[in-house]
Amino acid sequence: MKKLKRSARLVEMTQYLLSRPHTLISLTAFADRYQSAKSSISEDLAIIKEVFEEEGIGELNTLAGAAGGVKFAPKMHASDALDIMNNICRQLEQPERVLPGGYLYMTDMLGQPELLADIGRMFATAFAARKIDVIMTVETKGIPLAYATAACLNLPVVIVRRDNKVTEGSAVSINYVSGSNKRIQTMSLARRALKEQSRVLIIDDFMKAGGTIQGMMDLLFEFKATVAGVGVFVESGEVELEERLLEDYVSLAKLTAVDLKTKQTTVIPGNYFRTE
Amino acid sequence: MKKLKRSARLVEMTQYLLSRPHTLISLTAFADRYQSAKSSISEDLAIIKEVFEEEGIGELNTLAGAAGGVKFAPKMHASDALDIMNNICRQLEQPERVLPGGYLYMTDMLGQPELLADIGRMFATAFAARKIDVIMTVETKGIPLAYATAACLNLPVVIVRRDNKVTEGSAVSINYVSGSNKRIQTMSLARRALKEQSRVLIIDDFMKAGGTIQGMMDLLFEFKATVAGVGVFVESGEVELEERLLEDYVSLAKLTAVDLKTKQTTVIPGNYFRTE
Repeated sequence: MKKLKRSARLVEMTQYLLSRPHTLISLTAFADRYQSAKSSISEDLAIIKEVFEEEGIGELNTLAGAAGGVKFAPKMHASDALDIMNNICRQLEQPERVLPGGYLYMTDMLGQPELLADIGRMFATAFAARKIDVIMTVETKGIPLAYATAACLNLPVVIVRRDNKVTEGSAVSINYVSGSNKRIQTMSLARRALKEQSRVLIIDDFMKAGGTIQGMMDLLFEFKATVAGVGVFVESGEVELEERLLEDYVSLAKLTAVDLKTKQTTVIPGNYFRTE
Repeated sequence: MKKLKRSARLVEMTQYLLSRPHTLISLTAFADRYQSAKSSISEDLAIIKEVFEEEGIGELNTLAGAAGGVKFAPKMHASDALDIMNNICRQLEQPERVLPGGYLYMTDMLGQPELLADIGRMFATAFAARKIDVIMTVETKGIPLAYATAACLNLPVVIVRRDNKVTEGSAVSINYVSGSNKRIQTMSLARRALKEQSRVLIIDDFMKAGGTIQGMMDLLFEFKATVAGVGVFVESGEVELEERLLEDYVSLAKLTAVDLKTKQTTVIPGNYFRTE
């Protein structure tokens, strides 16, 4: 790269950091890249850090020492997240979203890149401090949420299939009981998709009693992997407490009431926003 | 937002533009946001434009006039794309990827956020000039590619299902014949997922004869929608010319030979890199 002026270097460093979240970049690498003294690089990083943190873009964490450098962690301010989630809740409450069985149509919302980027940053904020090797979801609607989160945390995604495709090679299958409708279903994961001992963040779009997520946990057990966290976009509050299979999870929104006759629903921000 | 110094403003503007691709932002909006004169904003944009274009991050296009402003279009230089794709081809040639039936295991690669971001920028470069309303793919492996492209082009994604889920509402289903193995299969799309007359970019992970993509095209016909383009990550060259259902598509890589005994494969850059 040719030597850049200060202003151009700031632009380049900003995009370089934004496109490499949760990646340690040494001061030496920056100094070489921009043919600049480490002291100048440090000054630039201080400016970038201040803007990122003030504007709620994320944190720029400095690790001192020989193996040190900077690492960008995408985050979202709680107040920004709440504004966005209140807006999402209003959209989820639109009466035409109520489907037979009390399900909520939200596939269109999960197709919006900007909304997904926001949700990814919320989950990245919630799980930034956990040690995670991989993000897992089950097809189909959880997939964009898992990738949006993975992009912020710089982690690979594995997708659990509801069938066993030839293009996946040998796979482990389990049966699970969906907690809400009591049907027995199958899910499977390619043997080579997940290393043993992996620490796994489970992301899904909707949780009622938690049967599907419990199924993923059972599958993880078969891989000798452990659950590092569970994040769901919307949880249903219409579950009896004794039916709930799961206690420790992060929800961004909560569906508290569905009236199938009037198609009126109430959606409120989830436990992500609970302040104790 | 509080008034920022020049250097901080450059950092903020850079991240603001990067997170809003293909979105027109007026000079007035920037001037208000940063409480700065339009002339200063224009100078900043000129610096950002130069860095973005020199480093192959994308184009910053200025639209003059009252309704004018700037729009960031993520792109990738052809030489960078070829370097990345050559590296991807080497990975795809690993013998352990060959599965029974001559399929190639690439699910792990489609789980890597950085690789997906690169592929998204390649497709965004290929299709930047087309008029597109929505990106379509079929579950499951095409999904991350569709979202990566959508993030660069700021377009919504619709996912064609291989079944008809209760959570989707009323849907249109079609039968199609997979060109390579001649099996009849079903795909369906929720009625409300796609507006009539939409211009649709189809993205998928793998194309052999093109039966699955032809199926999506037939489905689009049912929605009175039109095909704005077809992009596939890997095409198989092991198809007789008369079997090929599709002529007009962009492929990033081409699988030219699979030897099931020795598990040797050859993967070369696709027609995206063809220079005429």
